[in-house]
Amino acid sequence: MIHLNPVFIPGPTNIPESLRKTIDMPTMDHRSPGFADILHPALEGVKKVLRTEAGEVFLFPSTGTGGWETAITNTLSPGDKVLACRNGLFSHKWIDMCQRHGLDVEVVTQAWGDGIPTDRFAEILSADKSHAIKVVLATHNETATGVTSDIAAIRRALDAAGHPAMLFVDGVSSIGSMDFRMDDWGVDIAVTGSQKGFMLPPGLAIIGFSQRALAAVESARLPRCFFDIRDMRGAYAANGFPYTPPVGLINGLKASTEMLLSEGLDQVFSRHNRIAEGVRKAVAAWGLELCAVRPELYSDSVSAVRTPDGFDANQIVAHALRTYGVAFGAGLGDVAGKVFRIGHLGLMTDGMALSGIATAEMAMADLGLPVELGSGVAAAQAHYRQAPAELRKAVA
Amino acid sequence: MIHLNPVFIPGPTNIPESLRKTIDMPTMDHRSPGFADILHPALEGVKKVLRTEAGEVFLFPSTGTGGWETAITNTLSPGDKVLACRNGLFSHKWIDMCQRHGLDVEVVTQAWGDGIPTDRFAEILSADKSHAIKVVLATHNETATGVTSDIAAIRRALDAAGHPAMLFVDGVSSIGSMDFRMDDWGVDIAVTGSQKGFMLPPGLAIIGFSQRALAAVESARLPRCFFDIRDMRGAYAANGFPYTPPVGLINGLKASTEMLLSEGLDQVFSRHNRIAEGVRKAVAAWGLELCAVRPELYSDSVSAVRTPDGFDANQIVAHALRTYGVAFGAGLGDVAGKVFRIGHLGLMTDGMALSGIATAEMAMADLGLPVELGSGVAAAQAHYRQAPAELRKAVA
Amino acid sequence: MIHLNPVFIPGPTNIPESLRKTIDMPTMDHRSPGFADILHPALEGVKKVLRTEAGEVFLFPSTGTGGWETAITNTLSPGDKVLACRNGLFSHKWIDMCQRHGLDVEVVTQAWGDGIPTDRFAEILSADKSHAIKVVLATHNETATGVTSDIAAIRRALDAAGHPAMLFVDGVSSIGSMDFRMDDWGVDIAVTGSQKGFMLPPGLAIIGFSQRALAAVESARLPRCFFDIRDMRGAYAANGFPYTPPVGLINGLKASTEMLLSEGLDQVFSRHNRIAEGVRKAVAAWGLELCAVRPELYSDSVSAVRTPDGFDANQIVAHALRTYGVAFGAGLGDVAGKVFRIGHLGLMTDGMALSGIATAEMAMADLGLPVELGSGVAAAQAHYRQAPAELRKAVA
Amino acid sequence: MIHLNPVFIPGPTNIPESLRKTIDMPTMDHRSPGFADILHPALEGVKKVLRTEAGEVFLFPSTGTGGWETAITNTLSPGDKVLACRNGLFSHKWIDMCQRHGLDVEVVTQAWGDGIPTDRFAEILSADKSHAIKVVLATHNETATGVTSDIAAIRRALDAAGHPAMLFVDGVSSIGSMDFRMDDWGVDIAVTGSQKGFMLPPGLAIIGFSQRALAAVESARLPRCFFDIRDMRGAYAANGFPYTPPVGLINGLKASTEMLLSEGLDQVFSRHNRIAEGVRKAVAAWGLELCAVRPELYSDSVSAVRTPDGFDANQIVAHALRTYGVAFGAGLGDVAGKVFRIGHLGLMTDGMALSGIATAEMAMADLGLPVELGSGVAAAQAHYRQAPAELRKAVA
Repeated sequence: MIHLNPVFIPGPTNIPESLRKTIDMPTMDHRSPGFADILHPALEGVKKVLRTEAGEVFLFPSTGTGGWETAITNTLSPGDKVLACRNGLFSHKWIDMCQRHGLDVEVVTQAWGDGIPTDRFAEILSADKSHAIKVVLATHNETATGVTSDIAAIRRALDAAGHPAMLFVDGVSSIGSMDFRMDDWGVDIAVTGSQKGFMLPPGLAIIGFSQRALAAVESARLPRCFFDIRDMRGAYAANGFPYTPPVGLINGLKASTEMLLSEGLDQVFSRHNRIAEGVRKAVAAWGLELCAVRPELYSDSVSAVRTPDGFDANQIVAHALRTYGVAFGAGLGDVAGKVFRIGHLGLMTDGMALSGIATAEMAMADLGLPVELGSGVAAAQAHYRQAPAELRKAVA
Repeated sequence: MIHLNPVFIPGPTNIPESLRKTIDMPTMDHRSPGFADILHPALEGVKKVLRTEAGEVFLFPSTGTGGWETAITNTLSPGDKVLACRNGLFSHKWIDMCQRHGLDVEVVTQAWGDGIPTDRFAEILSADKSHAIKVVLATHNETATGVTSDIAAIRRALDAAGHPAMLFVDGVSSIGSMDFRMDDWGVDIAVTGSQKGFMLPPGLAIIGFSQRALAAVESARLPRCFFDIRDMRGAYAANGFPYTPPVGLINGLKASTEMLLSEGLDQVFSRHNRIAEGVRKAVAAWGLELCAVRPELYSDSVSAVRTPDGFDANQIVAHALRTYGVAFGAGLGDVAGKVFRIGHLGLMTDGMALSGIATAEMAMADLGLPVELGSGVAAAQAHYRQAPAELRKAVA
Repeated sequence: MIHLNPVFIPGPTNIPESLRKTIDMPTMDHRSPGFADILHPALEGVKKVLRTEAGEVFLFPSTGTGGWETAITNTLSPGDKVLACRNGLFSHKWIDMCQRHGLDVEVVTQAWGDGIPTDRFAEILSADKSHAIKVVLATHNETATGVTSDIAAIRRALDAAGHPAMLFVDGVSSIGSMDFRMDDWGVDIAVTGSQKGFMLPPGLAIIGFSQRALAAVESARLPRCFFDIRDMRGAYAANGFPYTPPVGLINGLKASTEMLLSEGLDQVFSRHNRIAEGVRKAVAAWGLELCAVRPELYSDSVSAVRTPDGFDANQIVAHALRTYGVAFGAGLGDVAGKVFRIGHLGLMTDGMALSGIATAEMAMADLGLPVELGSGVAAAQAHYRQAPAELRKAVA
Repeated sequence: MIHLNPVFIPGPTNIPESLRKTIDMPTMDHRSPGFADILHPALEGVKKVLRTEAGEVFLFPSTGTGGWETAITNTLSPGDKVLACRNGLFSHKWIDMCQRHGLDVEVVTQAWGDGIPTDRFAEILSADKSHAIKVVLATHNETATGVTSDIAAIRRALDAAGHPAMLFVDGVSSIGSMDFRMDDWGVDIAVTGSQKGFMLPPGLAIIGFSQRALAAVESARLPRCFFDIRDMRGAYAANGFPYTPPVGLINGLKASTEMLLSEGLDQVFSRHNRIAEGVRKAVAAWGLELCAVRPELYSDSVSAVRTPDGFDANQIVAHALRTYGVAFGAGLGDVAGKVFRIGHLGLMTDGMALSGIATAEMAMADLGLPVELGSGVAAAQAHYRQAPAELRKAVA
């Protein structure tokens, strides 16, 4: 296995050495007082990354999918109505989960590559005079298409309609890499995982609940047990966990939040924007287009690159891995074979990004695409070079 | 933190160096072919440890608790009847989970320290002419009390009664440390976690399904999504995972099963028996008794030691940790304050066990218990010394 | 290989997790400014551990043996006279090295098990009116016999005689574990290695030079190149190294000195004394004697235990390793077969020490020695229990 | 510190994950039988990498510099004559070491950037009818200039002259990365270190002695003790080491030789040639020249790139590190400020190399050099793409 090539998948990300070492702990007794010294700073650190003061954070040994299930089973009852937009594989999957739990999902279908249509949401919410809609689901960053939607606009739509529905946001591939403001945006539940912006291995669902969401827990009648927030909350109050916690990962989360907050969230986000913009300049230089249809939708954590009609984009992923030992993300769902994805979230330096761009160029050229060698690299280099020195140092 | 003292909690266990290093992987693309080379050997290895040929194994990023939920939500429907025995905290918790999922649990209450009363189970099953009971739940090894129940006897009771109920076994703290025979005992679902006999960090629920249990999945109406076996099974068939898998842990599981099978399961179990018997000799030398009320119930993975009436056993745990940096298990549930627990599952050598025994002696003496220093150590030493050389080498 | 049993050899010692992780660095450019941030704090930290302000510290990719060679080749010329005492294998080897370099060694022979006879040294120095003796060599702690000699007394002998000879001390197995005062004792060169009191892997010779020793460098005519202090000193001044430095080990040394100084040297030494005294109580309980002939010679880093006449002590070492997977030190040189050694320097907790004592008991009993099982453990436990709480916490 | 950017210094190299983990061992007793199972395979593995059957290999806790000292002090006597060529900093340093040891060095001065003039050597050897020259020193790969000399031609010159001088070769930055044939070329001593072709951290001098060189040891009168081959050889025969061995590093060396031999030496060398040739194509695309003056001198482990007159090449190294977190090698000695060096030995993939080339382009452009962004990358990509698939897989 080639271990010194970075991965360019949109999560799990490349893991900083120091976080790997923080996670790799000898066993400690999770019922001992030392666990509190790991758990509570991790929870507090996540709150700061979510930019919430009033909310509470919960960690489940699980994944983002488990986080979605935590969100809906703790707050809703069978037959409850939710509003959601399907504009990619991950928003599709969350809708599917709701349906499998017996919820009534009003699905707004949007082209894959487009963002959540906040105007359409506004209309639906205004029309819902009876407030049948209990929750609005929003995927902040569609990992499948590299599309970032405007959560603040959804909050404005809710407020403008005077609608009391709660706002649940899948921030799996945005939180920690892109601006996310739980309190400012009135997010009631924010869901993410350890393996994206937090640069950790997978294994943790990380979930923020607003006080309003917490208040909904008692009346929710969807069955849950492993994911029951009440057990988790009660255990935290006693410095414990309702079952065996993954202590090493939580220790890593504590260190990861320290790392992000010490760099400064705005700086972290600027850094990701800079890296992403270089990748986008490269894509343009190749004469290709992003799956995301408008610049304001461009994701700073993943770029899905459309390949020419009739070309199977999966070939690029398979060839790059087999020939150059470098992993890119395949297209998923409706855009399978039509796009390949370059993940640039988590730990990524200019040099790493350029290595990925150069490898993608070789793979595309090998497969007969009319991509000029070095063209994307040159475009990205030109962008990276102009960054102010203090931003570039931020990768340290 | 003192990192070179082993822990004596009944899981998570001490982790072998080589497994820690196997887990601590750089990120790989879990959608690449290399993942199959990790996943399938891990699944096959677990099958061998479970001693099943017909069964199938599933891994969830979760814990044993998630494993219980996987078992019941994939096979049962609201109102279904299950038979279970409450004889410790963990059997209690599984029963509680069933009730929270709307199942009708016939609870056989047994003293904590006693095992599952197979005679009583036999009577109930014989009397259940309508076969209302769909599933019998059994906790193979009650981690809270150090009691091992006789699963083969429950199978015989089912067979003798001609009862078609399925048999679900919580083997969290037995599998990999004590004899467990999924096929021979007709176990339909076996549940464990990564952090016990497999000597890995927590984070994986490990579950074996018999073909009969798999056949029950389609008709089961309890809602499940994250824990849906169908998604997991379908993903495995495509060399994938329904969400982001904890690749490092699964890689560790592959290596762990190789380690156990290479030593030989019978040898592994003999080794644990030898270590456990030494601990039991020490307890006797201290003039104390185990929580387990009869020798045939004694667990080879954890010993719960009763302290004299009026003495708070939790003091031992707190004092040993604070003063000597050594972690023992506190009493839980009904036996909180009445017992302290010495975990001896997973990686444990004679020298490690003796260090735990010696530390427990100091802690008890410090707290005024009439324990003679060195007495338990001497009793355990006498036992360890007589082991045949090939068994002692097995710890290597 | 059994990885969770501590070793009880008198170095290399058990290595704290955090130091292992500090050493295991990805490659950095040792000619970059970052190297200075590792090198200089390591050098300063060692100075504090040596308790020298005026001295300078040098690190060679080598071992303690290389440290001896550095000491003599940088300060002496062929035919120069040195005074030394042979009272164990390591003092013997240093003398041998001097002779192979053409020095004229006046050897005071002392029984192995005894310390340097400072009275005899005083006589010789007083009689040396012409000051032919250029250097007095002293082995502070004879690792082969577990004997600590009185360096301050040698200094007093030099001063009383008004003798200008320099004082070179082998502190390989004392520095960092036992009181050592370079400035107070007028030590001109102190030699140690990374793998003892500093709890690191082997690979570094660590050497302190007084200003007087440095002044002797220019006139010294023994050839040296790799070990030439002048190259090393010049390189440090330019934040570099005369050849490729072992950056990871030096980074570990920086962290190790921080760890020792943060605990407090006096506390570190008290802790080692406490652990050592427990081992000595155990030896007495076994009815055995130390190689060290008087209590004031007892070493706090290693105990060499004499076995009965006619018994081959090496059997204990071989048997304990083969049967119990625990490493003790064999007897070396003149005491080979007559002693076995229990190393208790570096990282060692009460629990670890008790585990070693218990294993030694089993091994001796297995081999037919009349040692009562548990007797040594009980004696050590009694000692460890009475330690003040703050000392016991120091192992954290 | 940026930990996921590879280094592009000509050693220490990037270290494969698996080797880092192999080195990072818990302490084992180096006097126990287990040490032989590490030491002897490491020695045998190095013999295969050196392509010697008759020679013997020795490992010293030291560096390549210590390896040079081992070579000369074990085989020569004060006043002995050696022939050497000074064509770079490292050949200069070896000559300097010889002079400091009192040897009579006949120095052939060659331009830095040129190779050893084998014709001139042939003349000198032919003229030395009295065979005063005892040893010919040759630096196989001048790390300072990126120049590889022709060792086989020197052997031919010796043979043609019928001259009995021994041939000592510094292969520090060639062995393990480029073709090296100890037996075929009649090399009497080959010197290298752990941190180059073996991809390990620094800390080991690795030295091969022919039987002829071993025969010279007894009569050699240069003083040595730490580096005395006789002590080392005797210790190996007893499965030991004359002082504390760096067990982890030796374990890493065992694994490293297994890795190289399993890939196949010819494949390893082809891989390095391919990576190096891509770098050279990039240099040409930049309109720059190598320090090495002729293609047959080009080194496959390091390229020293000449910058335009009046430009301080050190700026590139400082700027790339400060701004992009990427380490290149500075010019050393006579070419300081005139060249910067791109190390491409050890573990290096196409993607890693392209990342270094891209970063160098940005740094040069930032500093005002007329380098077209992407030009070097494109040239290297074109080269890397045409490699046969089996060679590219070899990086795995």
